[in-house]
Amino acid sequence: MNYPNKKKSSSEIVTNHGISHSNRGMSLEEDINKTNDLYLIDNIAVIHKKPTPVTIVKVDYAKRSATKITEAYFKQPSTTDYNGIYKGKYIDFEAKECHHKTLFPFALIHDHQIKHLQNVLNHGAIAFIIIRMYVDNKDYYIKAEDFLAYYNSTDKKSLSLEWIRENGKVISNSYKIPCHYLDIIDKEYKL
Amino acid sequence: MNYPNKKKSSSEIVTNHGISHSNRGMSLEEDINKTNDLYLIDNIAVIHKKPTPVTIVKVDYAKRSATKITEAYFKQPSTTDYNGIYKGKYIDFEAKECHHKTLFPFALIHDHQIKHLQNVLNHGAIAFIIIRMYVDNKDYYIKAEDFLAYYNSTDKKSLSLEWIRENGKVISNSYKIPCHYLDIIDKEYKL
Repeated sequence: MNYPNKKKSSSEIVTNHGISHSNRGMSLEEDINKTNDLYLIDNIAVIHKKPTPVTIVKVDYAKRSATKITEAYFKQPSTTDYNGIYKGKYIDFEAKECHHKTLFPFALIHDHQIKHLQNVLNHGAIAFIIIRMYVDNKDYYIKAEDFLAYYNSTDKKSLSLEWIRENGKVISNSYKIPCHYLDIIDKEYKL
Repeated sequence: MNYPNKKKSSSEIVTNHGISHSNRGMSLEEDINKTNDLYLIDNIAVIHKKPTPVTIVKVDYAKRSATKITEAYFKQPSTTDYNGIYKGKYIDFEAKECHHKTLFPFALIHDHQIKHLQNVLNHGAIAFIIIRMYVDNKDYYIKAEDFLAYYNSTDKKSLSLEWIRENGKVISNSYKIPCHYLDIIDKEYKL
């Protein structure tokens, strides 16, 4: 992990689309967490990442200090990673980094998560996927409606980079707000 | 933990208020999870418990089978345990069991969670606390607004049982829906 104080200088990274991501140098998860922290502090929205689901098998209570978990396993998530509230609306999304140069494989999102996006949409959520395409050095906002319509109508196993560029919206970034997805929501939903 | 097949017969437990909880015999968390599962299957609402937050320190990738976490610690939650969407509304709540006979100690709810309830209320959430008072053998729905107003205005360290009975609404239960809190929400918010 690269922390801010290790990040590269402003001039080092410029994408082929002219947007510099040099402000980041962090993982998408770190950028979203930092953004969410800012939204919370500035009283804009309350959106949190859910903890990583683990199945706890053995716990050691013997220690006087903190209870120690000595055996646990990662569990498949049954929902997306992020949810919360913004201007009275329920917000729900998944975020994925993608190092492929030409596509985003559906396999990066669990079936449960895709089903979950459909479920929350049915109940009136603002739902989406954030995809960081390293080839473009950009974060794309993909409406869950668009993603699901394509996913349900194709035999393909991925989104093509062209599809993402055409259907996704580029999320702005700055040092202060590294992944400012609420900006897209404001415009999309006229909030 | 008592599982359904170990539960007592219908006639064994009757509360002093005449409502039998013999249908349950499960923890509040299990009852709420079962209720949420039903809400999801019946396409009524999408509400999930968040995973227990843990700090993972050591992971053993050596095994060919599942990646094993060999050292981890429980972490204080920064939000409530449950959230989701119902009829387009953002729902957020915490659930607590209480074995005290005369009161509910504020210490059972973390400061972060109380702050979180205030935060989501500020953005238009339907927020509340479910308290299972074993002395009454009942689950009470306490509006977050009522809880916070009292919490912020008192020097006391707890809710009295009288306060809970007066301000809380009793949540109905049945074998099928062991903690039917959406029923209260429908009435409270005229949904």
